[in-house]
Amino acid sequence: VTGADAVTASPTVFGIDLHVDLTSSRVRAGLEGALREAVRSGLLVTGTRLPSSRQLAADLGLARNTVADAYGQLVAEGWLTARQGSGTRVADLPSPARAPATPPPRTTEPGYDLRSGVPTLASFPATAWVTALRRALHAAPADALGYTDVRGRPELRQALASHLARTRGVRACPDGIVVCSGFTQGLSLLARVLHQRGATTVATEEYAQPAHRDVLAAQGLASRPLPVDVEGALVDRLGDEDAVLLTPAHQFPLGPTLSTRRRSAVLTWAADTGGLVIEDDYDGEFRHDRHSVGALQGRGPHHVVHVGTTSKTLAPGVRLGWLVAPPDLVDDLVEAKRTTDLASSSLDQLALARLITDGGYDKHVRRSRHVARRRRDELLDALHRQAPAVQVDGIAAGLHTLVLLPGVPTDARPQAVVETDAVASAARHGLAVEGLQAYRHPDSDTTPRPAALVVGLATPPDHAYSGALTRLAATLNELPALQDGPGSRRAGPASSSVP
Amino acid sequence: VTGADAVTASPTVFGIDLHVDLTSSRVRAGLEGALREAVRSGLLVTGTRLPSSRQLAADLGLARNTVADAYGQLVAEGWLTARQGSGTRVADLPSPARAPATPPPRTTEPGYDLRSGVPTLASFPATAWVTALRRALHAAPADALGYTDVRGRPELRQALASHLARTRGVRACPDGIVVCSGFTQGLSLLARVLHQRGATTVATEEYAQPAHRDVLAAQGLASRPLPVDVEGALVDRLGDEDAVLLTPAHQFPLGPTLSTRRRSAVLTWAADTGGLVIEDDYDGEFRHDRHSVGALQGRGPHHVVHVGTTSKTLAPGVRLGWLVAPPDLVDDLVEAKRTTDLASSSLDQLALARLITDGGYDKHVRRSRHVARRRRDELLDALHRQAPAVQVDGIAAGLHTLVLLPGVPTDARPQAVVETDAVASAARHGLAVEGLQAYRHPDSDTTPRPAALVVGLATPPDHAYSGALTRLAATLNELPALQDGPGSRRAGPASSSVP
Repeated sequence: VTGADAVTASPTVFGIDLHVDLTSSRVRAGLEGALREAVRSGLLVTGTRLPSSRQLAADLGLARNTVADAYGQLVAEGWLTARQGSGTRVADLPSPARAPATPPPRTTEPGYDLRSGVPTLASFPATAWVTALRRALHAAPADALGYTDVRGRPELRQALASHLARTRGVRACPDGIVVCSGFTQGLSLLARVLHQRGATTVATEEYAQPAHRDVLAAQGLASRPLPVDVEGALVDRLGDEDAVLLTPAHQFPLGPTLSTRRRSAVLTWAADTGGLVIEDDYDGEFRHDRHSVGALQGRGPHHVVHVGTTSKTLAPGVRLGWLVAPPDLVDDLVEAKRTTDLASSSLDQLALARLITDGGYDKHVRRSRHVARRRRDELLDALHRQAPAVQVDGIAAGLHTLVLLPGVPTDARPQAVVETDAVASAARHGLAVEGLQAYRHPDSDTTPRPAALVVGLATPPDHAYSGALTRLAATLNELPALQDGPGSRRAGPASSSVP
Repeated sequence: VTGADAVTASPTVFGIDLHVDLTSSRVRAGLEGALREAVRSGLLVTGTRLPSSRQLAADLGLARNTVADAYGQLVAEGWLTARQGSGTRVADLPSPARAPATPPPRTTEPGYDLRSGVPTLASFPATAWVTALRRALHAAPADALGYTDVRGRPELRQALASHLARTRGVRACPDGIVVCSGFTQGLSLLARVLHQRGATTVATEEYAQPAHRDVLAAQGLASRPLPVDVEGALVDRLGDEDAVLLTPAHQFPLGPTLSTRRRSAVLTWAADTGGLVIEDDYDGEFRHDRHSVGALQGRGPHHVVHVGTTSKTLAPGVRLGWLVAPPDLVDDLVEAKRTTDLASSSLDQLALARLITDGGYDKHVRRSRHVARRRRDELLDALHRQAPAVQVDGIAAGLHTLVLLPGVPTDARPQAVVETDAVASAARHGLAVEGLQAYRHPDSDTTPRPAALVVGLATPPDHAYSGALTRLAATLNELPALQDGPGSRRAGPASSSVP
């Protein structure tokens, strides 16, 4: 990841052409390594004055603290000296210290990342968040950081009620909202309450987040796979399940939106059987080609629990989510939350409430949606030019797409193996990406979907995105089917293959 | 809570002598009410220019936003007008609007609060926290806000490992720490893991937080009361329980520290039976008269889970805590955390890590300890002067004390009733306070402790503390036993009454 190049040995260096890979999670280590190697190799000679940490940070687009910390570390190690008024300079090292010249350690970590749900800090509105927190703390009532309402801070429930009504058509009053720590906790609390009420089985989409099945299992609930087609989950097949977990706005990871017909059908099922619909609205705010599809909860607030999260709009590390629940569930959810962790972070709740009411949240979501749409177009364009035989699916919405892996239809190898090979091939190109079959329910008995990669649109920082696409195209072009020439097999779009 | 007084009717008012009770959680409502009443009553006449929101905020010690919001509300209601360049003035109200002169609504909410564990925002180091968060976000690696290590951010676990070793004698490596959302979640995760391993019963101190018993029960564990005397919990009475939950540094709420002899005994019990010791170190950093007592975990890291929290050092609303667990428990705790809420807020974790490494955390704890000690001394002094017959116990450490309620020893009324009367009497004085018996285990079969109030030292803001003490003394002086004259009954200190 590190390396040094063309460093001028003048007494003062303004801007160093260091090849620091900014996609690496170890930026500071990379910078330190690059500087260490530049000194060791003699590119930076004794007495050379380095740019100020502020200057170098600006040149490299890093936080100043990153540079200052790296300088501090190298001063501590004896490579550099720092003296008041004289700046940071290359130390006068005894020759032996430079002699070893061992190459910097090679990292095997991929430099590019197209996995879904792995955002970089760069996409988080850090300044707006910190400002919102500061203002919220100034304005908050005296008891805001005490043992608060288990449902969450009133400021946030108030802000969410109107925000969700406006943007998602959710019917919510502040007292019907339970703030939780991300979707995972929301589902865990629901599962606990359902289990307490005697529930045993929850239907889940046959391709879905495996972790969600684990959350259900941890509360004693079995999950039963529900096939998915172009209209979304086949809710007509629901039977005696106690609940169904759906991603109606944008099925994850396959992509379709739950059709109007299916929406009515699942609400009818719920009304007839008393089953609960759990609406995972993980990226409902991200639509590219059509108007936003309203939340299912708006059509059936007495049968649907709407679960939202800031993991896609802000970052998973925020760990905030919300349950909008039918009235007869709220008290039990509150009791479950009380004995689980009492409440979610008031600091984060106050900041988010402020960000929503100040308009900063909407602004950030609009910007993120714009970025995701632009990146989707870049992906389609790059693959069209560089790997024309490849098809892409699930592109109408959201923060990920499916890139179908070309292969021989009669190929006896399981789709999962085709994907594993592609993922390994991508890794050799320095690209992290993941296969579709990892999301398949282990009990699913339908024909597996054609092999595909689930490609995240929000993951790499801007400057690394086109490089990531180039690596993706190169990976795809190396696959056996494409080597045989385009057209040897055209994977049909998953959205047209009804299981 | 509201009222207006001696407001000059000059064209421009600089500083208004409004009696706004800043201890109320409804500062803005109080300010609005005071201003409304001042206009209504004619104390502020039409055209009077009010101080700028900045100026009035500075005069009253409020956040500027609070004042600006109150002004905005009153402009919206028509009491004030705001015009660019002309400032905020009293509106020209038609006479009828002033006529009703209905008295402002009386709140029945106590104005003073001496309950334990109910801190005000004023004691939270908001500026240091926001700065730490800002700096931490600048310096954080690119993946810091992604789906992170379930155990918690490495920055925080690293900071905690050395902080806990230094301040509490905890033996921890970063990989043995699981960050959680406050003590409640820490206990809930432990209870879940214990239950999965077949545990059924946890011994708890007979006076303890009732909510902790609820957390155990929610995971299917029964709690069994363990008597407490001057040496802390009677751990010699432990038998076949699967675990014991203790507050060794400062028994809550009774006050004693677990003696050296008992510490050895409980570790022997754990080693002999395989039982787990859960160390609730809720206020271990707060000692007044002696050196800090090291954590029990330091003497038996293979049998003790040390659970810490920021609820007392910073604020409950931070919702951060940590488990330092024996190696054979860590994996199960991580799995429980993963399926409960995946991780705790990375934002809060990064900020706390920075606050610890920057020294701001230590500084704040030192300041809080100083305040708590000073307030304890003020409490002793105030009661000595104003209610000399009353005894105080549990004063060597922590953020609360026990104020023993004088009563007739032969009084047949249960201690809980004596306390309920005192709490009601305090409420009539505008003081919120709580009785000791609320903490008693329902299955406890020992003689109840003498009636007492659990008095928090950290709750009111500085300017309200002496007022709260005056109300406490007045409450105590009204009790029947004291009305009969001092000496009619001297409650022995709880610490000398071995059950």
